[in-house]
Amino acid sequence: MDYSTRIFIILVISIQISHIYSQSIIQTPLENNRKTLIRDITDDDEIFCNSWKFTVETNDAGIWSRIPKRCVKFVGDYMLGIRYASDSDRVLDSSLSFARNVKIAGDGKDAWVFDIDETLLSNVPYYQLHGFGSGLFDEKSFDEWVDLAEAPALPASLKLFYELKHLGFKIILLTGRSEFQRGATEKNLLFAGYDDWEKLCLRDDSDIGKNATLYKSGRRQLAEEEGYRIHGNSGDQWSDLLGFARATRSFKLPNPMYYIA
Amino acid sequence: MDYSTRIFIILVISIQISHIYSQSIIQTPLENNRKTLIRDITDDDEIFCNSWKFTVETNDAGIWSRIPKRCVKFVGDYMLGIRYASDSDRVLDSSLSFARNVKIAGDGKDAWVFDIDETLLSNVPYYQLHGFGSGLFDEKSFDEWVDLAEAPALPASLKLFYELKHLGFKIILLTGRSEFQRGATEKNLLFAGYDDWEKLCLRDDSDIGKNATLYKSGRRQLAEEEGYRIHGNSGDQWSDLLGFARATRSFKLPNPMYYIA
Repeated sequence: MDYSTRIFIILVISIQISHIYSQSIIQTPLENNRKTLIRDITDDDEIFCNSWKFTVETNDAGIWSRIPKRCVKFVGDYMLGIRYASDSDRVLDSSLSFARNVKIAGDGKDAWVFDIDETLLSNVPYYQLHGFGSGLFDEKSFDEWVDLAEAPALPASLKLFYELKHLGFKIILLTGRSEFQRGATEKNLLFAGYDDWEKLCLRDDSDIGKNATLYKSGRRQLAEEEGYRIHGNSGDQWSDLLGFARATRSFKLPNPMYYIA
Repeated sequence: MDYSTRIFIILVISIQISHIYSQSIIQTPLENNRKTLIRDITDDDEIFCNSWKFTVETNDAGIWSRIPKRCVKFVGDYMLGIRYASDSDRVLDSSLSFARNVKIAGDGKDAWVFDIDETLLSNVPYYQLHGFGSGLFDEKSFDEWVDLAEAPALPASLKLFYELKHLGFKIILLTGRSEFQRGATEKNLLFAGYDDWEKLCLRDDSDIGKNATLYKSGRRQLAEEEGYRIHGNSGDQWSDLLGFARATRSFKLPNPMYYIA
């Protein structure tokens, strides 16, 4: 018996047993018709795209370059609808629960790291005009958007930013943007309502070609060498959060539009 | 001006700017009425619970002990409906995409680590009768369920298991279950359709009191010392995947029912 046949038989047995055991008020749907079910699952864009998003947000998907074609509408609806705001708000809850229990030493070295794009600032107005990440990244038009310095704040992050400052954290901004964009970035941050951050780290010449995880880890390590204790780190990319010199707790914000390695 | 007032004014400005910039065919909903929107978001259980699940699956939530009361129905519907199957299937896709690109040396040391509960085996029939993790964990009744050895396979994992074996991976099973449950666990794995694994690691006396991340990292390290190259690791808990001696790629399976530190 080959292993596909074996799996099929086992599935049928498993489903039968599961069915026998199921005596709850909540019934499992269509258990005896998994073949139909599988077709339905992959045919339904909403279900498929929700699950694709699961793999993106957990980093199961690994490196990816474009939203699946069938999910472009899903991503647009998500980013502009209440789910993006709601997901961000619940990450805010988790971040604040942790932050409120950090003992602040009072020496000005208790720090929180924030990424900028899709973390403090929302580029949704840009991506809304550029297919929500469904095309290849266009550096030229994105740089023009950065120069406009008109990206709005992500409301949940704006709230977290001021709550953290109120609690006594020093705020370190760590972005993949380049030094030549420092002026526009500062202008945009002020425009969006942020101020009084401790430092703003951008990529300089020595960072060219480094992947984001390595660049960001190196900058966090430098901050630690300067005496900062990095308690929390907020970012929409796993490359904001992984690597070395990690924060005590990292907070992944939602972003199904693009992936930065 | 206190910072709450400041945030409010900034939000209004940000929203106005965002509104002016928005010229796409897709319109942002209710942007000029965020106050109403916030109330709607937190009032709607489906939206709230989806976002709560986001924080659980990304590990933003950190340690948690019970499903929020308002989300018990949501979790039940999720586990028994097509979304759990669909999410698991998309994780399977990601896992297989990676696995197919691993160069198998042929020395029998290319390994993949699997957790057992909610990874290879599904305890949904048990949790269905116990409020889907909404109560405190009842070790006695869960151990009785384990002794039954009738947990069905998670279909996506059963498929991955045999595909990996077919590709030439050795399968290491690493579970938080205890040595005294070895017999029942082996019996259940065979019943659910798994066989021919390389080794099955359970907690022995020296592991009592160790948290799951430390215990599992230690066992992975031992495997590495035995010469195994751990390419992939599949688990429903972050404690299956984090710590030291990590796999090259880790795959987080969905589980909004419980958290193991």
